This record gives sequence, structure tokens and C-alpha cells, in this order.
Amino acid sequence: MTITVYGYSGSTYSLVLLHILKELGLSYELVQPSSFEEIKTPEYLATKHPFGRVPSLTDDGFRIYESRAIARYLINKYQGTKTSTVLIPSDVQKAALVEQFISVEISYYTPPISKLVVQLVMMKRFGKEPDLKIVNEAREELDKVLDVYEKLLEGKDYLTGEFSLADLLHIPYTFYAINSAGEGDLWSKRPNVSRWWKNISERECWKDLVTEYKLAA
Amino acid sequence: MTITVYGYSGSTYSLVLLHILKELGLSYELVQPSSFEEIKTPEYLATKHPFGRVPSLTDDGFRIYESRAIARYLINKYQGTKTSTVLIPSDVQKAALVEQFISVEISYYTPPISKLVVQLVMMKRFGKEPDLKIVNEAREELDKVLDVYEKLLEGKDYLTGEFSLADLLHIPYTFYAINSAGEGDLWSKRPNVSRWWKNISERECWKDLVTEYKLAA
Ligand SMILES: N[C@@H](CCC(=O)N[C@@H](CS)C(=O)NCC(=O)O)C(=O)O
Ligand SMILES: N[C@@H](CCC(=O)N[C@@H](CS)C(=O)NCC(=O)O)C(=O)O
Repeated sequence: MTITVYGYSGSTYSLVLLHILKELGLSYELVQPSSFEEIKTPEYLATKHPFGRVPSLTDDGFRIYESRAIARYLINKYQGTKTSTVLIPSDVQKAALVEQFISVEISYYTPPISKLVVQLVMMKRFGKEPDLKIVNEAREELDKVLDVYEKLLEGKDYLTGEFSLADLLHIPYTFYAINSAGEGDLWSKRPNVSRWWKNISERECWKDLVTEYKLAA
Repeated sequence: MTITVYGYSGSTYSLVLLHILKELGLSYELVQPSSFEEIKTPEYLATKHPFGRVPSLTDDGFRIYESRAIARYLINKYQGTKTSTVLIPSDVQKAALVEQFISVEISYYTPPISKLVVQLVMMKRFGKEPDLKIVNEAREELDKVLDVYEKLLEGKDYLTGEFSLADLLHIPYTFYAINSAGEGDLWSKRPNVSRWWKNISERECWKDLVTEYKLAA
């Protein structure tokens, strides 16, 4: 079994895969494209990702792209073989609730938080000024979404009660928003949301990634 | 077994569920909210969908919201029990490719096509003028996405080779774009894409829905 991830160690979509691989106890090789131009070349589009994105993955010659699809593939194939971590439960109703919160993450949480992180973190890295109108609108939208999360997390340590793929998918963007964009207030002022963030951000596998790839720097 | 869908028969996210229920041979009751205001009331947020959307579903008292999560739940629980239609295959690699194209749909296809349909179809229904700048940008983006689809569909009748949930999720928006927005050219000018659209739009279950809910009117 040889698993290769094509992606950037700093990219949120790649990081969820590295985190999942660690939770499942799988070893992998990370191959980082040499430049942002590389992922738009005809060769890359034909062999890695037809829409010119990262990440993609090969597992003994089987190639797949799109982080959420790769996540489910790794879990379907390897969950329970090396570690006891359960990211998608086998019970049909429990799995449905995990899927519900995966869709909540992609539909309501990630659109505003990704704008915030792109403006306040990524733009800066490329030496550009953030667009404060986008920042303010995104912060306002995220604030409302987190109000809903505060209710959904009442009396719970994780979104479905138990740690799952749904929680894990929230980690990279939230990490950057809190640690690199300085927006920690949005989480810390809400008791349930802040307990949840503590629970998920203190997963050993995630802390290993932060150290290994110097994410806090 | 009593399945109730809360949603609008004209809403693309509700339609995918009605289509799946038919493909799986399940009967259901459709309950349509009385108004758009109803889905923002505290009662609705507390009991149906905390983000104020449609659809949601109950199955013998088990409640779940978010169309893509509901889709996977219905398939996990009922696929193969009433009909032989396979929407997510059991083979791990085949399922991974279905998931890959589900993510392609949500990441690249739906953002531009939904803008096109909202501007050219929904706005009109509410008596408003479409924003032509948004229309033109969305059409241009969709055009590029369909160029990639044309390559992906080379020699194939469906996205993964066989009909699956990934194809099905494309149907409602595409139906409106072609039949209500008059954008059919985008599909018909591409041989592979147009063969694919013919294959998926001629599913008996979908044609039944079009008639039953008068979608073409
Ligand atoms: N839907 C994709 C999104 C991947 C994505 O957007 N990745 C970013 C890096 S974080 C990328 O490749 N950006 C390059 C670009 O958009 O040109 C997934 O889930 O894998
Ligand atoms: N992520 C949701 C999206 C559902 C959605 O946006 N539904 C629309 C109707 S087509 C809606 O409820 N719109 C009301 C609103 O946005 O206020 C899903 O997949 O179920």
C-alpha cells in the first residue's frame, strides 16, 4: 500500500486529508506541486485534477481528486484497520447525522470563514492588502452561523455528540481564522462553540500536523 | 415506514430527493411550507432546519436536513430493497468515483448554473429583472466547466460510466437552465455533454416528476 497525496501542506483542503490519514494510522507521501502555475498545465489537468486544484491522491495506482470524496474513500477502505478512531459510524442514522453536519460545514460555515482566511491570511502572504468590505461581510455572516452552532452544540462535546469527520473538516480553516487571522473572539465568546473548538483542536493527530508542518508560524 | 419531505416541489434541492425516492421505489408525503417567511420562524428553525432552508425529511420520526445528507441516508438505508437501481455502488473504488463527481457538481457545476437559474428563472417568477452582469459571468464560467465535462464524458454515457447519484444531482438545475432559462445551447453544442444530458434526463422517474409537478410549465 503506497498512498501519495498531491497537495500543499498549508492548504486547508490538503490538511484535512493529512489529518484523516493520521487518524486512520496510515503512512503517506506528500508531493507538493512546484508552483501554482503547475496545477494549471495541460499535463496536470490530464493526470491529476481536471479542474486544476489540489489535493488529489493515489493509492496503489488508484487516482482520485476532491478532498471530501478522498476523505470518504479513505474511511470506507481503511477505517478500523490500524486504529480504533471512528470518523463515519456504521449505524445508518448516526452516519446520516455526520453527513448532515458535513453539509452544514460546506454550505454555511466554510463560505464565510474561507473568505475571512483568504483576505486576512492568504492575501497577506502574497503581499496584498485585504478587502475590508469582504472581511466585514464575511465576519458578520460567520457571526450568525456561529450563533446557530452555539445552539446546536448545547450539551454536546461534538456536533453529533461524538467526534466524527464532520468536526474534523472544520479544523483547518478555524485554526487559521483563530491563530493567523486573529479572529479568535468569534469562538471564545460562545461557551459551547469554544468547548467544541478546544475538543477538536486538541486531537493529538492535529497537534502533530501543526508541529510537523509549522502551521502556527 | 412513513417518509415526509418538507420542501417545495419546484426547489432544485427538494427535487433531487423526490427523484431519489422514486428511483428507490419509496412512497412519501410532500409537505410544502406555506410561505418563504415560514422557513425563518423560530418554530421552523427549532424543529425543521436550524439554518432556515428546505428540504428536510422525517422517516418514522427520525429527522434529518440538508439534501446531500438525506440522499446518502435514503440510499444507505433503502437501496436495493424495492428496486434494483444503484445510486452508490458498494465497491469502494466505484463509490469513490461517485463521490468525486458529487464533489465536482457542488464545487464547479452548481455555483455558476445556480446563478444563471436564479437570475433568469427565479427572479422572473418574482417579477424582478435579472442582473445581466451576473448572467454573463455565470454563463462564461459554466461554459468553461462544460468544456471539462466534455472531456470527462469522452466515451462514457454517465460520469462514472454507469448512472449514479452523481449524475442525478445535476438534473434539476440543468433542466431549468435548458427548459426555463433557454440556455440549452451550452449543452447541445457539445456531443458528449449532450449525450449525457439525454441519458439522464430521460430517466422514467425524472419524467414522472416533470409531469406530476408540472415543472416544464
Ligand atoms: N473542491 C475542492 C477544492 C480544492 C481547492 O480549492 N483547493 C485550492 C487550494 S486550498 C486550490 O487548488 N486552489 C487553486 C485554484 O483555485 O486555482 C476540494 O474539496 O478538494
Ligand atoms: N445546502 C442545502 C441548500 C438548500 C437550499 O438552499 N434550499 C433553498 C431552496 S432551493 C432555500 O431553502 N432557500 C431559502 C433561503 O435561502 O432563505 C441543501 O443541500 O439542502
